[in-house]
This record gives sequence, structure tokens and C-alpha cells, in this order.
Amino acid sequence: MSTRDEYLEFLVATIERAGDLALRYFRGRLQVDDKGDGRVFDPVTRADREVERFIREQIAAAYPGHNIIGEEFAAKETADSMTWIIDPIDGTRGFVAGLPTWGTLLGLMDGEACVVGGMRQPCGGETWAGDGRRSYFIRNGARTENKTRSCDQLADAVLCCTHPCMYPTAESLAGFNRVLRACRFSRFGTDCLGYGMLAGGYVDLVIEGGLSAYDIMPLIPVIEGAGGIVTDWQGGSAAHGGLVLAAANERLHEQAMGLLNG
Amino acid sequence: MSTRDEYLEFLVATIERAGDLALRYFRGRLQVDDKGDGRVFDPVTRADREVERFIREQIAAAYPGHNIIGEEFAAKETADSMTWIIDPIDGTRGFVAGLPTWGTLLGLMDGEACVVGGMRQPCGGETWAGDGRRSYFIRNGARTENKTRSCDQLADAVLCCTHPCMYPTAESLAGFNRVLRACRFSRFGTDCLGYGMLAGGYVDLVIEGGLSAYDIMPLIPVIEGAGGIVTDWQGGSAAHGGLVLAAANERLHEQAMGLLNG
Repeated sequence: MSTRDEYLEFLVATIERAGDLALRYFRGRLQVDDKGDGRVFDPVTRADREVERFIREQIAAAYPGHNIIGEEFAAKETADSMTWIIDPIDGTRGFVAGLPTWGTLLGLMDGEACVVGGMRQPCGGETWAGDGRRSYFIRNGARTENKTRSCDQLADAVLCCTHPCMYPTAESLAGFNRVLRACRFSRFGTDCLGYGMLAGGYVDLVIEGGLSAYDIMPLIPVIEGAGGIVTDWQGGSAAHGGLVLAAANERLHEQAMGLLNG
Repeated sequence: MSTRDEYLEFLVATIERAGDLALRYFRGRLQVDDKGDGRVFDPVTRADREVERFIREQIAAAYPGHNIIGEEFAAKETADSMTWIIDPIDGTRGFVAGLPTWGTLLGLMDGEACVVGGMRQPCGGETWAGDGRRSYFIRNGARTENKTRSCDQLADAVLCCTHPCMYPTAESLAGFNRVLRACRFSRFGTDCLGYGMLAGGYVDLVIEGGLSAYDIMPLIPVIEGAGGIVTDWQGGSAAHGGLVLAAANERLHEQAMGLLNG
């Protein structure tokens, strides 16, 4: 097994255990704290913190020299080039509202390059994982390959996005709305699941704004390994978040870029 | 067992079998037809039609004299006062996008009065059913009572809605947005599951527009049986659809009504 394969197996085992830990708190009567700046409500719960702590322990045991960046705690910084990126519960708003679209994300970067990434969706018992060249969907131990769709016209495309209020400026919202109006239909409220459905060939575009690295980096190797393309709205790396455009293929990506920046 | 209890047991058994029939088609490679008017894409699949046909057969066998109204076929009209209302797949857009928020809905009206109603969410294996006085959540055969939350300030409330484009006029969208801005946070993309989460005490408001009777009538006995309140935006019956406001309690309902019409 190559080192890359070993990372991927470690990642799958870790997010499956971590996600199932989060699931124990789902629809429980959790206290919801606001870690936001007072303008936008940014929920965090005991579940977010416990799950991230668990993943950090697994990483520290398996790869003690690696860096760790997570949503809920301070970064662990080492001299190594390898950095693990954790989102213990992506979609905490959905989680506290009892909706099943949240997931546990984990990715690994080597400097600026995405190495492996994956997502566990505990409500469906489903896992996505990839290394940028291959991308897998795993359910009940059965592993199949993800493949994006060949839809190459916006008029036939299905668009996902978590929330229309996630765009940081009026211009970015206007760009998103130009794509929305050109698509066949759109679905909001998708959190990380939208990217999984893109990799699996059920939707064609995911366009979002205001993302952090931990919201998107773990999903890049999953989408690229399935044949998709993920960039920021200028065509650069999406690994650090911000405005993100994920497309099933290059033709759709190009058409969406035109409207986003038009 | 009262007649009302018999109706409820029939309804639960029917939607659980019907929903599991729909689940067989979920994430399959279904042909998606457009039954819309050419302006708005309105998807329908073989799954919608087969599930509705199954439910109609069950009703015709158990209650041959009753009326039937469903989303996909012409109404069955009799001289009886009892009418079954069917939505075989509520949330067909989510269904064809591989997202798990869709459900199978069935309700019974006696003239203008809602008698019983329920929803099956096959992805989660979960059923909601009620008769306006009691409301149940059923999973793996275990039945618990639904109860809405006591949250009585919009600033603390969680709001759900399927899509911001579902409002028929600029005025109704503006009304919805006034409530959205007053709430703690909002979630889109919820389909029928938003109403289930309201009944279960996880969210506080569901506000939607452009609904048909089959989108909302089956959910009214579930929400009212859990202590919630469902009306149109004028405070009248929501059983025929249109603009709908569902709230966890009367205080929230009153505050939301003020902003919707303000």
C-alpha cells in the first residue's frame, strides 16, 4: 500500500468513528452556544468539540509530527509540511435543527497540495473519500467509484448551495443568482452533502461563498477524483475557502465562471 | 378503536409501504420528465406515479366510497364527504438530486376538516402521524409523542423553508424576508421534513408559498397534534395550500403574521 493509500484508509476509519460519535448527539437536547461575532449566529455544541477532540487524538497517535487545523480549537503547528484539516460537524445549523445533511470532514494537505480528503454522513451511514485521482462512495462496507455527470449545459444543470445569505457582497450574490437563473433547478440547504452528490453524479454544480478551508479542502480530492473541478471564482485553488465553484466537468465550470464574474 | 384511530393506523401502514416503494428508485438512474408549464421546471418520475398508484389502490380497497385527490392523477370524485389527499413524493427536486429530505404524504379530510395526516421519510426510516389532538413520531416500530417548542421570540427562533423562489409575488417574498431577518437562523431545502422537525421540537417556524393542498394538508394534523399552529398568511385554513405559516406556538405565530403582512 502506498503512503497515499495508507492516509486514505486512516482517514476513512477516523471519520466513520468520529461521525458516529457526532450522531449520538443528533436530535438530543444539546445546548447551542454562539461563537459568532454578534452579527451572524454561529452555533457550536459539545458534539462539535468532542468530535474534533477525538479526531485530533487519532491524528496525534498515528502521525505525531503532522500539523492540525480544525474548526473548534487552535492550530497545532509543527515543522512538517503535512497538515490535517478537520471540520467535526460541517452544517452545525442543520445539525441543531434536526436535519440530516451535516457531515464530518477530514482532509490532508502537503504544503499547498491536497493529498486525500473525505466526508462521513452519519445519518445515511455514507462515506465519500478520494485522493484526487480516484473517489469512492462507501456504504455498509461496499465501495463503489464516484463519477461526475457529463451534463455540459447550464440549462440542464442542477445547482446546490447551502444558503443564499452566505455570499459576502452584493456582487457575489448577483453572480450566484445569474447562474441560478440559468440552471434547470437549484436546491439550498445542502451543506457538505451537495458536494457528495456532485461527486456521485446527481447534481452538476455547487456554488458557495464565505467558506473556510475546513469547509471545502477535505472535499476537493473527492470531487477531483470523480472527474469534477473545484476552484475559487477566479479559477485558483479553493483549498483556503472563500468563494467556491465546484462543477461536474470543465465545460460547465467555464460557463458558470462566465456568469459569476459577468 | 375509534374510526379516527383506524384511519390513522391505515394511514401509517400505507405510507410506510409506499415510501419504501419510492426508496427503491432513489439515486437510481431515473428518467425525469417536466410536467411544468415551460416557465418553471416541475419534475415527475416513474417513482412518483407508481407510488401514487399504490396508495390509490390501498385506499380504494379499504375505503371504496371515499374521494381521492393526488398530485399525479385525476381526482376520484364520489358523493362521500371523506377525501384522501396524496403526495407520493413531496420534494421531487430533492429526490432527483439524491438529497434525503423528500417524503410520502397522505391525509384525510371530512369536508373542510382535517381528520388525520402523516408523512413517511424513507431515507431516515421515520414516520410522523397525527390526528390534530395527538401526534406521533415512529421509528423502528417505537412510537413517541411529538411536541413543539415553547420558544416565543423570533430572535430565538429557527426558520425553515424549501426555496426562496417559491413565493408568488415580490410582496410575499418581502414578507418572508422580514421574518427571516428577525429569526436566529434559517434553513432552506427542507421540503416536508421542515414540518416534521417543527412538530418534533427542533425548529420553530416553517414559512412557504405556492403550495398545493397535497403539500400541506397531510401535515396539519401532525403539527396541530404536537401543539403547533398552521394557517395561511391571513390566519385562515392552510388545507388548500398557497401561502403557509406553521409555528410552534401561538405567540410565534402572531409575531410572524405581523411581519409577513407588515
